[in-house]
Amino acid sequence: MTAQASTINSRPACIAVDAMGGDHGPGEVVRGVIEAARHSDMRFALVGEPAALEAETGAYVSRPANVEIVLATQVIEMTDQPTVAFKKKPDASVVVAARMVKEKRADAIVTIGNTGAAMAVSLLTLGRIKGIDRPAIATPLPSGSAHGTTVLLDAGATVDCDPNNLWEFAVMGSIYAEAVLGIPKPRVGLLSNGEESGKGNELVKRTHALFQQASEAIDGQVPFDFAGNVEGRDVFRGTVDVVVCDGFVGNVFLKASEGVAEMIMDC
Amino acid sequence: MTAQASTINSRPACIAVDAMGGDHGPGEVVRGVIEAARHSDMRFALVGEPAALEAETGAYVSRPANVEIVLATQVIEMTDQPTVAFKKKPDASVVVAARMVKEKRADAIVTIGNTGAAMAVSLLTLGRIKGIDRPAIATPLPSGSAHGTTVLLDAGATVDCDPNNLWEFAVMGSIYAEAVLGIPKPRVGLLSNGEESGKGNELVKRTHALFQQASEAIDGQVPFDFAGNVEGRDVFRGTVDVVVCDGFVGNVFLKASEGVAEMIMDC
Repeated sequence: MTAQASTINSRPACIAVDAMGGDHGPGEVVRGVIEAARHSDMRFALVGEPAALEAETGAYVSRPANVEIVLATQVIEMTDQPTVAFKKKPDASVVVAARMVKEKRADAIVTIGNTGAAMAVSLLTLGRIKGIDRPAIATPLPSGSAHGTTVLLDAGATVDCDPNNLWEFAVMGSIYAEAVLGIPKPRVGLLSNGEESGKGNELVKRTHALFQQASEAIDGQVPFDFAGNVEGRDVFRGTVDVVVCDGFVGNVFLKASEGVAEMIMDC
Repeated sequence: MTAQASTINSRPACIAVDAMGGDHGPGEVVRGVIEAARHSDMRFALVGEPAALEAETGAYVSRPANVEIVLATQVIEMTDQPTVAFKKKPDASVVVAARMVKEKRADAIVTIGNTGAAMAVSLLTLGRIKGIDRPAIATPLPSGSAHGTTVLLDAGATVDCDPNNLWEFAVMGSIYAEAVLGIPKPRVGLLSNGEESGKGNELVKRTHALFQQASEAIDGQVPFDFAGNVEGRDVFRGTVDVVVCDGFVGNVFLKASEGVAEMIMDC
């Protein structure tokens, strides 16, 4: 995040960080937050069990003044079922962090814990943006594009989608690409099994038609350029800035990519 | 292929090879066939334009006796629309090769050309196996399994599937794994966005239920062990021998894998 973005209504932005989540939490999370805090004028709230967090921050000469510790007595584990955990653990670190955003004590939440729980807690605590039917997980991936990054969504939040969901993902993804990655009027591709407009399963064919109609009908109001169908390879080649697909396909895409990288690195 | 498999009804098996297809045909195809023929007692039919093939084989001291050249005056290009090409090019190399199998002058066909055309030509010339509703493309991938290979299907033949199609793919894939790769009673996984049985899109959830019911109801007759849901990473890890998915997802999976490999190799 740039220095320009670090104030909200002329006060420093505050990031609520779920310090207990993740495979290496809280140690690595605390280390990351302290590193970030030293180079930033934002504020950070480390949310979790104070004893564990003090022990971790104690390893540093001093905790920066812009890092506070916020009490949360419970933890949602990686193996917890998301909606059950939300009900049974109202004082979990990720829930407390989300509540800080809801109550405007923080401006954003960061968690590297249970993805399903992060989604369920966000949905149930913060709700959805008006006009957006279903959530999506946006994943910025390294690519050969001019900006070096291509955003894939949905990476797993909504496994069964209709064309309207994918249209909303395209709008959200392109706003993210412009606001966060600085890409003006991003190029959006629809993930398919071939570039030709006739390619795709039923969902992709119907979505392609919707995207074309909408791009023509409300041309001046669409925040992106529709680049048509793209293939799996195009994501890493960076042919487009944003790639849209349903959450099932996006999840398979990501895990296949991780699998290949893992295999090649092991050789 | 092993020596045991190289005779059919006590005569040498014959492979019809589409010599004109592929990005590097006919040169690389001819070279590959001659290499194979020198170490095999099978017969090979190089199907294509004789002048081009003689020029390529002429680069060798002598064409092995078990390699014959079969005339085909046309070529289906990579850019041709498959079913249109099948109608307009009845003397294309891939069509002539398929016809040799149909007329029992050959036992199998090999082509590295236009995949859609290979599928259309096979379907329209050879037809489907009795009891199989839709075709699938099986792709053996390198994996960490005991046999070093995991077969993914469908990699792109049938983009919209129902649970019954996926069941047939599982049966075909496991027979392939046993007959060709020598894996007795292969373990079959269903590609999903998580291992738990509740994970998946609508298709995967319904397919998971069908697989479980069928495995219990006709236990002794199922040619594979159903291992439940697997994730994209499991393909390369080799957790199972065969991975089943619809042709849209399989195609995205393969192209994502190629994209990552391409990116890493370029670094």
